[in-house]
Amino acid sequence: MAYDPNNIFAKIVRGEAPCFKVYEDAHTIAFMDIMPQAEGHVLVIPKEAGETIFELSDESTAALIKATKKVAAAVKSVVKTPGVMLAQLNGAAAGQTVFHVHFHIIPRSGGIDLKLHAKETANFEQLKALAAKIAAAIK
Amino acid sequence: MAYDPNNIFAKIVRGEAPCFKVYEDAHTIAFMDIMPQAEGHVLVIPKEAGETIFELSDESTAALIKATKKVAAAVKSVVKTPGVMLAQLNGAAAGQTVFHVHFHIIPRSGGIDLKLHAKETANFEQLKALAAKIAAAIK
Repeated sequence: MAYDPNNIFAKIVRGEAPCFKVYEDAHTIAFMDIMPQAEGHVLVIPKEAGETIFELSDESTAALIKATKKVAAAVKSVVKTPGVMLAQLNGAAAGQTVFHVHFHIIPRSGGIDLKLHAKETANFEQLKALAAKIAAAIK
Repeated sequence: MAYDPNNIFAKIVRGEAPCFKVYEDAHTIAFMDIMPQAEGHVLVIPKEAGETIFELSDESTAALIKATKKVAAAVKSVVKTPGVMLAQLNGAAAGQTVFHVHFHIIPRSGGIDLKLHAKETANFEQLKALAAKIAAAIK
């Protein structure tokens, strides 16, 4: 499948679609997943176009994991969960639904099941407030 | 929790425990998961000690994702699955069972469920053969 420059994440990169942003640098943007699988579910994307990690340059890939690590530490400190799962899905068969490469940061607490098939949109006021807290906690 | 230098992955790094190796460079080692959640399940670890990604240096983190991407491309080409999931679990609450940071490379095919709680050890002859195929496919 060819990369679709009008996918929602490409629009977020170009500033044509809104997001609850928590972090941005020269190579990446991080924002709240609006259908979170857990409270504090954040997505981190490269600004470089690429459907999966296999199309991404090594430079962008390194910048992506560096930003993901930085944002995940902030998510962990704000949401106060003992566990954090990083997941990066390549291909519809792996569960990818937006075809611009992205890392999921998903806080995990023992005994609390993931909403693996999240289809509910979160409350936007709450997401906005959480995004601000996470942004403030990034070191 | 403090890093335990006698965890199984630390032993693999030091050559004190065996593994079905598919890749090694200055900073990382990749080998078959012996309790695979899918055929072709490979683990990639940094040689640097660290319980979770949060303790890992940026240099090791970048080397880790670069090796993971390289090995995942080889896994995909050998196992011939349409999807590949990369997962990195931090903390027992997130499902981490060996406390040396690692990335999972898990091939995914639509409609085939992940063995999320894999407890069965794979056939070692088959794992060894698969490891050789993946090693040969690394570019």
